Amino acid sequence: MWWDEQNEETRDNYRRMVDEGRLEFIGGGWSMNDEASAHYTAIIDNMSWGWKFLEDTFGTCGRPKIGWQIDPFGHSREQAAIFAEMGMDGLFFARLDYRDKTKRKNEQTMEMLWRANPRLGAKSEIFTGALYNHYSPPPGFCFDLLCSDVIIDNPNSPDYNVISKVSDLIKWAEDEAKAFKTNHVMITMGNDFNYQDAHVWYKNLDKLIRYVNAEQASGSRVNLFYSTPSCYLKGLNDAGVTWPTKTDDFFPYASDPHAYWTGYFISRPTFKGYIRSSNAMLQAVKQMSSLAPAAGSLEAELNLMREALGINQHHDAVTGTAKQHVTDDYYRILHNANVAGWKIFEAAANSASAVNGAPKLAYSPCPRLNISECAFTESTTSGNFIITVYNPLGRPQSPLIVFPVVALENGSPPTYVITDPEGNTVPHDVFPLPQPILVLPGRNSNAEYQVHFVARDLPPVGFASYHVSVSTARKNRVKREVKLKVNRSKKQGFVFENDFYVITLDSATGHVSSIERKDQPGISASVRQEFMFYNGMRGFNQNFSDRASGAYIFRPESQAPLTMRDQLDVSFVAGDVLTEIRAYTEDWASHVIRFRSDSEVLESEWIAGPIPIDDGVGKELISRFVTDIRNGAKFYTDSNGKLTEPRTRDYRPTFELGDDTEAVSRNYYPVLSRSYIRDEDQSDPNLSRQLTILTDRAQGGGSIVDGALELMVHRRLLYDDAFGVGEALNESAFGTGLVARGLHKFILTSVSNAAKLYRAEEVKDIMRPLYAFAPTSLSAKKWLTGYATKVSALKAPLPENVNLMTLEPWRDGRLLMRLEHMFEPGEDAVLSNSAPIELLDILAAPVLSIRETDLSGSQVAPVKMKWDYEGKADKEDESLNDDIEKGVITLRPSEIRTFVVTLA
Amino acid sequence: MWWDEQNEETRDNYRRMVDEGRLEFIGGGWSMNDEASAHYTAIIDNMSWGWKFLEDTFGTCGRPKIGWQIDPFGHSREQAAIFAEMGMDGLFFARLDYRDKTKRKNEQTMEMLWRANPRLGAKSEIFTGALYNHYSPPPGFCFDLLCSDVIIDNPNSPDYNVISKVSDLIKWAEDEAKAFKTNHVMITMGNDFNYQDAHVWYKNLDKLIRYVNAEQASGSRVNLFYSTPSCYLKGLNDAGVTWPTKTDDFFPYASDPHAYWTGYFISRPTFKGYIRSSNAMLQAVKQMSSLAPAAGSLEAELNLMREALGINQHHDAVTGTAKQHVTDDYYRILHNANVAGWKIFEAAANSASAVNGAPKLAYSPCPRLNISECAFTESTTSGNFIITVYNPLGRPQSPLIVFPVVALENGSPPTYVITDPEGNTVPHDVFPLPQPILVLPGRNSNAEYQVHFVARDLPPVGFASYHVSVSTARKNRVKREVKLKVNRSKKQGFVFENDFYVITLDSATGHVSSIERKDQPGISASVRQEFMFYNGMRGFNQNFSDRASGAYIFRPESQAPLTMRDQLDVSFVAGDVLTEIRAYTEDWASHVIRFRSDSEVLESEWIAGPIPIDDGVGKELISRFVTDIRNGAKFYTDSNGKLTEPRTRDYRPTFELGDDTEAVSRNYYPVLSRSYIRDEDQSDPNLSRQLTILTDRAQGGGSIVDGALELMVHRRLLYDDAFGVGEALNESAFGTGLVARGLHKFILTSVSNAAKLYRAEEVKDIMRPLYAFAPTSLSAKKWLTGYATKVSALKAPLPENVNLMTLEPWRDGRLLMRLEHMFEPGEDAVLSNSAPIELLDILAAPVLSIRETDLSGSQVAPVKMKWDYEGKADKEDESLNDDIEKGVITLRPSEIRTFVVTLA
Repeated sequence: MWWDEQNEETRDNYRRMVDEGRLEFIGGGWSMNDEASAHYTAIIDNMSWGWKFLEDTFGTCGRPKIGWQIDPFGHSREQAAIFAEMGMDGLFFARLDYRDKTKRKNEQTMEMLWRANPRLGAKSEIFTGALYNHYSPPPGFCFDLLCSDVIIDNPNSPDYNVISKVSDLIKWAEDEAKAFKTNHVMITMGNDFNYQDAHVWYKNLDKLIRYVNAEQASGSRVNLFYSTPSCYLKGLNDAGVTWPTKTDDFFPYASDPHAYWTGYFISRPTFKGYIRSSNAMLQAVKQMSSLAPAAGSLEAELNLMREALGINQHHDAVTGTAKQHVTDDYYRILHNANVAGWKIFEAAANSASAVNGAPKLAYSPCPRLNISECAFTESTTSGNFIITVYNPLGRPQSPLIVFPVVALENGSPPTYVITDPEGNTVPHDVFPLPQPILVLPGRNSNAEYQVHFVARDLPPVGFASYHVSVSTARKNRVKREVKLKVNRSKKQGFVFENDFYVITLDSATGHVSSIERKDQPGISASVRQEFMFYNGMRGFNQNFSDRASGAYIFRPESQAPLTMRDQLDVSFVAGDVLTEIRAYTEDWASHVIRFRSDSEVLESEWIAGPIPIDDGVGKELISRFVTDIRNGAKFYTDSNGKLTEPRTRDYRPTFELGDDTEAVSRNYYPVLSRSYIRDEDQSDPNLSRQLTILTDRAQGGGSIVDGALELMVHRRLLYDDAFGVGEALNESAFGTGLVARGLHKFILTSVSNAAKLYRAEEVKDIMRPLYAFAPTSLSAKKWLTGYATKVSALKAPLPENVNLMTLEPWRDGRLLMRLEHMFEPGEDAVLSNSAPIELLDILAAPVLSIRETDLSGSQVAPVKMKWDYEGKADKEDESLNDDIEKGVITLRPSEIRTFVVTLA
Repeated sequence: MWWDEQNEETRDNYRRMVDEGRLEFIGGGWSMNDEASAHYTAIIDNMSWGWKFLEDTFGTCGRPKIGWQIDPFGHSREQAAIFAEMGMDGLFFARLDYRDKTKRKNEQTMEMLWRANPRLGAKSEIFTGALYNHYSPPPGFCFDLLCSDVIIDNPNSPDYNVISKVSDLIKWAEDEAKAFKTNHVMITMGNDFNYQDAHVWYKNLDKLIRYVNAEQASGSRVNLFYSTPSCYLKGLNDAGVTWPTKTDDFFPYASDPHAYWTGYFISRPTFKGYIRSSNAMLQAVKQMSSLAPAAGSLEAELNLMREALGINQHHDAVTGTAKQHVTDDYYRILHNANVAGWKIFEAAANSASAVNGAPKLAYSPCPRLNISECAFTESTTSGNFIITVYNPLGRPQSPLIVFPVVALENGSPPTYVITDPEGNTVPHDVFPLPQPILVLPGRNSNAEYQVHFVARDLPPVGFASYHVSVSTARKNRVKREVKLKVNRSKKQGFVFENDFYVITLDSATGHVSSIERKDQPGISASVRQEFMFYNGMRGFNQNFSDRASGAYIFRPESQAPLTMRDQLDVSFVAGDVLTEIRAYTEDWASHVIRFRSDSEVLESEWIAGPIPIDDGVGKELISRFVTDIRNGAKFYTDSNGKLTEPRTRDYRPTFELGDDTEAVSRNYYPVLSRSYIRDEDQSDPNLSRQLTILTDRAQGGGSIVDGALELMVHRRLLYDDAFGVGEALNESAFGTGLVARGLHKFILTSVSNAAKLYRAEEVKDIMRPLYAFAPTSLSAKKWLTGYATKVSALKAPLPENVNLMTLEPWRDGRLLMRLEHMFEPGEDAVLSNSAPIELLDILAAPVLSIRETDLSGSQVAPVKMKWDYEGKADKEDESLNDDIEKGVITLRPSEIRTFVVTLA
C-alpha cells in the first residue's frame, strides 16, 4: 500500500538504495509467519508470494537473503529448511527458551549452523543466529515517539547525557561481544510500532554513532555504524569460524519459569480451522487457475486468496493472539477469500464439464457445512441437482460427501437417488444430526438430518460430478440413533467393527475401552478416549508466579487435568456407508466416533463448547487417549505438518530443563497434523503398536503420562497473560461461549505400517476435495451425456510417495509446480526410498518448458554462502541423474523440488 | 532549538514560506502566556522577547499579526490591550464560559471588537474571535498519531469512508457557518502534542480538501483550503460587517456547571511567588544592563533571565497546572535565572560604586530571605559589611531592609551599627523571628533573629550602599515578643497605633476588630481578618457533579468556608522602626501584622502550611477580611496587575449565570496585584471607605459576602481534576506539605485617596529594591570616601503618575524604554490626568536618538486593519502635541508608550 502511494521520485530513491544494498529486504514473506501454527504449505505460499512481489518490484536486489523471524514464539526446523531451500543465507530470531539462551550466551553458541534436514545436505542448512537482546534496542537507547530516551549533546542542557550514553553503549557492546564468537556485534535498533516518525530515531542514532566512534581516539575498540543483517552475516562468514550445529527445533518457548508459550498452539480453534480449510481451498483453486483458462482469468480472486492466506499466517493471526476485533477482521478477509475461491471453482468446474455448449451450471457452495447448514440442499426438496467434486490430490481419493437436509411435512426428509459419473447408483445413508448440532448457538438451519455417501476414486487433479435426484414420493428410511444402556453391573462391552477394527466400549461407562486390528494379528490395545480439562491459571502477571493462562501462555492451575462425567450418554447410528458412535460427556464436550466400513482410519469428530465460565474460571479442554502402549516418555509431533520431531517428556536435547513446576505445559508441542506414540520396544516393528492422531487444524499436546496422548481442542480464559493481547481469550458468539467442531483421525496399527497410513491420510487434509451444488433440470441419464462428468489433469496418478504440492499460475503464463516426497528417511521400508518420476508420463498436457528454481520460485538461482561447521562431512552432496528438461526428476525422502513449467 | 539545528536548505525553504505568507507566526511570545496569573510587565516582556527573535530571524514577515491564545483558561482585557498595542490585528481564543459561548453562537457574536481600553481608542482595540470547536479538529477528523481518524479512499478497503467523511465535513462547515456573521469558516486542525509526524496530518488533509471540493460540482458551497489566521481575518475584514463590541473580560472561565477554572489563580503559591520576585529582579537587571556597561556585557545572563521569565508565564507554568516534575524544572530554570541576575547585579553595583580604582566588592545575595535564611549575615558575626540596594523605581522609595542573624555564645546576637550613604547612623531593630519560621521544614539556618531598617529615599533608578559594622562587644538589646492575654471576659481591646492608623484587637479572641484612620476623620471600619478554609471537593470526574477540586478547578465541598480557632495566640513586638502583631491561628495558618511608624500601608505577612491532609481531605486556605463596608455585592480586581475590573457577585455583564451551585468559585477572580471593596454610597468620596488588599504574587478571590474580601493563599488537594495535569495538587517538601509565606498589604482609606496610595504601593512590588551583601575591611568612614555610595540614572524623579516601566538593552546598542501612566481615567482627581513629561530633563545621560515603536519594540511600525463596530465614534483619535525627538511626551491615563533610545 505504501509503495502504491509513493511518487516516482520516492520510488527511484528507494530502488537506488535497494540496488546499492543500503536498504535490504529481510524475511520478505507476505507476513512474518508463525512457526508453530502455520502449515508448511502455507508458509511456503506466504514466503513465495511476498518474494514474488519484491522481485517483480525491485528486481534481483529485492530478493531477501535473510530469514528474519524476530517475534514468533518458538522456531521450527521446517521453517529453517524452507528458508534454506529458498536460498537464504541466514536466519535470525529473538525468542528461545530462557535457559537455552543463557547457556548459549555462556558457551558462545548463540550462532550456529542449523542442519534442518540432514538428508538433503547443504540445501536445507542455514546459518542461524539468536538475537542478544530480543529485537529491542539496549536499555536507554529507544529513540522513538513510543519511548522516551534521547541523546542530548547540548552541554548547556540540564539533561546533557551524551557522555553517559556513550559509555553505556560501549559497555553494552563489549558485554554483548562476550556472548558471540566473532568481533562483530549486531545491535538491534527498533521495536514494535516504532519508526512511525523515523526521523526521531535517525537523529539520535546519528549522534550516537558520531560520539561513540569519537571514543576510538581514546582507545575505544567499538566502531558503530549503520548496517544490515546481510552485512553482518558477511562479517561472520568472512571470520573463518567453525560453527556449532543444531538439528532439533526451538519448541516450546518459555520466557520464564511459568510462561510456556504453548497456549497459542490451540488458541482460537475455529479460527485455526478456518485458516486450515481456506489454505486447502487455496491449494485446489491454484491448480484450477493453472489448468482452466476461465479460472485462470480470475487473477484478482486468486491473488485475494493468496494474500488472505499470507496475512493469516502472521504470528499474531493464526496463533490466535490478536485482539478479538482484529481477529474478526481476519475472519472477514478469509471469508472474502473463500468467496473468491468459490468463483474460481465455479469457473473451473464449468470449464471441466463443458460439452457441446451445454449451459453453465450455477454453483452454490455450502461454506457452513462445518455446522451442518446448507441453504441449497435444505431448500432443494424436489428435482435434481449436481454435486461437483474437485480432487486436488495427485492420486484418486474417496472422500465422504455430506449435506444436511430437512424433514418435510410428513416428518421425513426427501428421498435421494445419487448417480456417480459413470451412471452407477451410489449407496448413501441419511443420519439424524447429533444433538449438539441441533442446539448450536447461531446455527441458522432447520436441517435435522444429513445425507452422506462416498465419492469413490475421484480422478487425480480433476473433477467428478454426481447427480442427485430428490423426491418426496415416499418416506425416507432415516437411520435410527440407538441409545446404549450403560450400566455399571454389566460386564460385557459394546462391540463395533468394520473390515479393519474391532472397537469395544466399556458397558459400565460408555467409553471406548479397546481397539483391536482384525487384519494385524497381535495389534491390539486398551484405549480409553476421554474429554478432560484444565482450569486456566488466574493471575494478574505482577510477577512470574502470578502469570495467567492466556492467549499465548498455557498454564493450568493443577498439573493433572480435571475429569468430567465418568458415565457417558452413548448411542450409535449404523448405516450402509459408515457407523457412528455418539458419546456425550457434557453439554460442552462430546464427539462422534465415525468409522467407514472400508477404512483403516477412525474419526473422532469433537464438538467443544460453550466452555462454562460461571464459576469465574477459564477452562482448557483436551481429548486424551489413554492406552497400554509403553512409549517410555517418548512421543512424536510434526514440524509444520511436514518433518517429524521426536519428543521426550521432561527433556530438551540442548539444555537442562531443571526445576520447573509447569509439568504439563512444558511438555506441550505444536501439532499441525500428526502426533503419535509407539511401543518403545520395537524388536518386531510388526508387533509394536503405534497410535497416531491426525488433526484438521493447528493444535498442541503431548504425552503427559506414559501411554497417553492428548490434544487440546478448545480454551476459554478470563485473564490476559500480559504478553501483548491485552484481552482475555474469552471467545464468545451469540451470547455464549464459542463452540468449535473438529476432527481427530486416529489410527492404531503396527509401527511398520504406520507412516504409509498417516502420510496418505494427512495429505488428504491439505488436498481436501472441494464440492459444490448446482440445480439441474436434467435427469441423471441426460446429464451423463450432456456434460463431462469426470476429468483429470494427469495421465497417470503420482506414485504413492509423491505429492503434487503446488501447481499455480506464476509469471508470464508459466506455472509454478512443486513436487514433494511425502516420506522422511526410514519412515517406511519402501516408500522412504528416493522417488524417481517421469513427469511427461504423468501430466496430461504437453510440457513446453521446464526449469528448476529455488523453493520460492524466484527467477534467479541463489548463490549461497558456505559455512564451516562442527562435524561437516568432506563429501559433496549427492548428485542425481535427473534430466529435468525431459521431466526425469528424482525426489529424495522429504524433498520438495520446485519448477517453473509451461504447459500446452 | 529546532531552528538552530536546521541546515541552510531547510532554513531557506522556511524563510521563503514565511516571506510568501504561506507560513505565518501567530502569537509569537516566548511562550503562550497565561492571562490570569501573569503580570502585565511579564506578558509584555514575554511577547516582546519572542517577537524580537522572530523579527531578527525572519525579518518583517516574521512579525505576528494575530494573537493566538487558544488554550489559556480565561482571557483578560489587559492581554487584549497588549496585543492591540503591539499592533496585532486579531486575537483568537478557545475558552470562554460555556453559557457565554452558547449565547454568542446563537447570536452570532462569537466575533467582536474588543475595546480593551476605550480611553486609548483604536490603539487598544482588537478584533477578537472565539473559536467554534475549542482548538480541535471536528470530531472524526483528528489525523494524528495520537488519534485514530483516517480518510480511506481506496474503494476496495472495508474501511472505505471518504463519502461519509466528506458529507460529515460539509455538514460541519454548514453548522459552524450558522454561528458566525460571514461566510468564512475557520476549521482548526490540530491539538496538543499533534504534528509530531506531520505527514500523517497533511496526507489526510490533502485528501479531505480534494474530495470535499469535488462536491462543488454537485452544488456544494463549501470550498476547503489551507489557510492562515491572517488570511481568515482578511476575509472578515473585507466582509464589510459591523461588529459587536466587548469591554469587560472573559473571567472566570467555566467549562461546565461544576468546573470553574478559578483554582489555578492560586495553585502553587510559592512557585507563583518565585516567578513574581524573579520578574521583579528581571526588571531591575534590565535597567542595570542598560546603564552599566560591565553589566550590559553579561548578555547571556540577561537573556537567560528573559527566557526563564518568558517560559514561566506559560499557561501551564505560572498557573501551577504542570506536573510536579515539570514544575521542579521550572524552579530550576528560575533558579538559574536568579543566579544570572545576581551576576548582573554584582557587575552593576561594582560599576556604580567604583571610585579611584577601589577594589571590587564580592557580593553575596541572600536568595532565601523569604524563609529568613542568609548564609552571609548569619556567618558574619564580627567586622564590617556593605549592603548595596538597587532601586529600579523612577522615584525614591524607602524599603525595609531585612537580614537574619544568629545568637552568639552569650545568647545574644551581635550588635550592629548601620551607616547610610551619607554617613548617618540608621535606626534599626533586632526582632526575634516568628515561631513558624523557626520550625519551617527544610530551613537550613540557625538564625533566630532578624535585623531590619529602613533604607530611606533610595535614589531613583540607582544604587545606595549601607555600611554595617558588627560587634560582639556587648549584648544586643533584642526586642521582646510580648504575649497578649486573650480573655473572653475582657471588654477592652488591645490598641496599636502609628502616625496614620489605630488598630484595635478584640481582647476576647485576638482578632483585629477595627481600624481607624487617625488622619482622615470619619474613616473607620470594623475589620476582622480571619484564616478559614474550604475542603476541596473529592471526586473522580466521571461526570460533571463528580468533579474534584484540583490544580485548575476550585470546587469547595461546601459554599461556606470552615472556620478555625476563634481564640488566637497573639503577641506583639514593638521596635523603633516598626511594630509587629503576631497572630497564630493554627500550626498551618498564621500571620504577622506589620506596620511601620511612617506608613499608610499595613502588612499581613502570612505563613500557610503544611496544610493537614490526615483526614483524607484536601484544603484551600483563605485570608478573609470581614468589614462593615457596605459594598453592595461589588468589588474590584485587577487585570494582570494593570487595568481595574469592576466585579459584581453572582453576575456577568454579557450573559445570564443561571442556576448554579458553585456560589463561591463562580465569584473568584484573578488578583495579580489589587482587590478592593468600597462603600457603595459614594455621595462623599472623602467619607466612603475603601479597603484595598495588595498581593505579592498571583492569587484569586472575591467578595463572597457583603463587606468581606477574601484571597486564597494556599491549596493542597488529593484528587486530580482531570483537565490534563494527571496529578493531584499535593505539594510536598521535606516530608510534609509545602509551606508558603507571602505578603498582603492592606490599606483602609477614603475612596478619594485610595488610588494614589495603592498605585504608588503596588508599583513598588514590581520595582522591588534588590539588595546584596559584601564584606569589607573598611570602616564606615573610609568606605564613605573610598566608594560612591549613591548613584542615580535620573536627574530628577519621574512624576508621581509615571513609571519607567522598561529600560533594557535592545538592538545594536540601543535601549528599549517604556513609560507608563500608572493611573486609569477617573481613578484619582489629579493623578488621572494626562501626564506630560520632558524626558531630557529626567534622564541623566544625554539622549542621542529616540524613536517611538509599538509596544513590542519591533522595528517596523504596524499598519493595523480598521474595523466597523457598534457605537464607533466618528471622530479621530485625539492628537497629542508631542515632540518625541526632544523628549516631550504625553502619557494619557493608563497608557504605555514604547521607545527605542540611544543614550550617551
